[in-house]
Amino acid sequence: MRSDIEAAAERFATDGRGFVRRTPLWKVAGSTLGVACAEVWLKLEQLQVGGSFKARGMYNRLLANRIPASGVIVASGGNAGIATAAAARALGVKCEVFVPTVSSAAKQARLRELGAEVVVTGAVYAEALEACLQRQRTTGALLTHAYDQPEVVAGAGTLAMEIEAQGGEPPDSVLVSVGGGGLIAGVAAWCEDRSRVVALEPELAPTLFRAREAGAPVDVAVSGIAADSLGAKRIGAIPWEITQRHVPQALLLSDAAIRDAQLALWKDFKLAVEPAAALGLAALRTGAYVPQSDEIVALVLCGANLDPATLA
Amino acid sequence: MRSDIEAAAERFATDGRGFVRRTPLWKVAGSTLGVACAEVWLKLEQLQVGGSFKARGMYNRLLANRIPASGVIVASGGNAGIATAAAARALGVKCEVFVPTVSSAAKQARLRELGAEVVVTGAVYAEALEACLQRQRTTGALLTHAYDQPEVVAGAGTLAMEIEAQGGEPPDSVLVSVGGGGLIAGVAAWCEDRSRVVALEPELAPTLFRAREAGAPVDVAVSGIAADSLGAKRIGAIPWEITQRHVPQALLLSDAAIRDAQLALWKDFKLAVEPAAALGLAALRTGAYVPQSDEIVALVLCGANLDPATLA
Repeated sequence: MRSDIEAAAERFATDGRGFVRRTPLWKVAGSTLGVACAEVWLKLEQLQVGGSFKARGMYNRLLANRIPASGVIVASGGNAGIATAAAARALGVKCEVFVPTVSSAAKQARLRELGAEVVVTGAVYAEALEACLQRQRTTGALLTHAYDQPEVVAGAGTLAMEIEAQGGEPPDSVLVSVGGGGLIAGVAAWCEDRSRVVALEPELAPTLFRAREAGAPVDVAVSGIAADSLGAKRIGAIPWEITQRHVPQALLLSDAAIRDAQLALWKDFKLAVEPAAALGLAALRTGAYVPQSDEIVALVLCGANLDPATLA
Repeated sequence: MRSDIEAAAERFATDGRGFVRRTPLWKVAGSTLGVACAEVWLKLEQLQVGGSFKARGMYNRLLANRIPASGVIVASGGNAGIATAAAARALGVKCEVFVPTVSSAAKQARLRELGAEVVVTGAVYAEALEACLQRQRTTGALLTHAYDQPEVVAGAGTLAMEIEAQGGEPPDSVLVSVGGGGLIAGVAAWCEDRSRVVALEPELAPTLFRAREAGAPVDVAVSGIAADSLGAKRIGAIPWEITQRHVPQALLLSDAAIRDAQLALWKDFKLAVEPAAALGLAALRTGAYVPQSDEIVALVLCGANLDPATLA
């Protein structure tokens, strides 16, 4: 799996378009964040193209496969859809995005702006997905999945590879938000056991936590402040397998703690991020995760697709 | 002057509080920003404590002087006031901030939150300043000035020193917004003639541009989108002297171009910055500044004290 991540990084570096950005790693003293540890490394991945880490996985999926004339196709009203549309535009290929009728007009407009053909169908995501899969069987377009494809996980893993390169060493721990699990799977696949990878989930969207209780992936009810980006109903099969090997801890955080951390990131650090990107700071501030005094903790700020007015 | 900047950096590094942050330098290909040059280096100084570069100058001023029991005093309704209050709080000394009655309730509340005693007096800034100076003569408090004190300019210069250290070499050019001139004076004092330092001003707040026309600092009328942070009425005496030696170009930009660049920084890069921080990108996008194809251009994103709702 590490070699797949290296291959993804190599594709990004050599494709000539510079589509995937090398986002900054910001090292601050733990005390700067009010945390009793040596250093906190903030991976500013919300600055990634498309506003989230998803671009890494989607672009790797597109670069690693032959793309038919019918282009690429995805069912997503969120960051995965935006990332797929942006990647397709960068490569000059067609893109269809299926979204349910509940998805906001703003998100649909953003997808159209990126050149995607937006198909609004189905009352909920599952129905949009079904229509998307049916369409894919007709057109043969390359399907991208938000988190449960090997190339998508490997692409996400390049983020952890970058943290290590930019930091000059592996951090002691990496705190990662989990929805369907694509990001943490990539991070854990890169880090293996050299850094402690910790899974963070909202209490109201506990896909990995409940899977661990059940001993296998199960459907969970999802809601709450981060549901639009961490609202997968079930942990992916690939993420489940990787996290079982390399992620010792899965922690839950309240919506109130996530919101407090999101507001603090704006007020004290001028980092505008979506709720899903604030779980790491929330874990440190609430004491859900207590680092050692000499520990280097890396936080992944994974996205910034939010209405900035919600920070005021 | 370079030795004063090195001394300021040494103070920041050794004072033990870690108050001044080493903000990230983000290197992107020119093409990422749609600019025909080799690289653009974005100095993310809007992430500085207090939300602007001003913390560097104010903190250096406080560290370099004995602070009397009456503390520090400043007249400012903007970033300089916030930075002084934050620096005073970090050092545990008293702070009085004089603001005119036109200053917003939100800014006054922010200053109080930072522990400052806020004195609201005078219809315009000049009257608040006069009251501040009179009070200073009574109390003997240490006065900080937003841009026209040697320690303030030297503190700002540490930003350019950091760019060079983080970049591994001096950039070919550095594009810097100008209000009273403290930031560009510090940058130019560090770079001297090793990088081309370019002054950028709103058409509606042209302190340096008009001074160059007149051959000496003159009062100018200031208004427009960036007036709350670039709205000094006259270029400072120290900045005037330094920029005359080391800043070959002073360019003007329209409010519309500044606003477009500010919105692009949010939409395409998820960087939430105030208008004053967008002049560099505006200069590149409008062609007011045209780099060479092999040029490395550094932009200083100098502040993020804005209402995020204005980015929507």
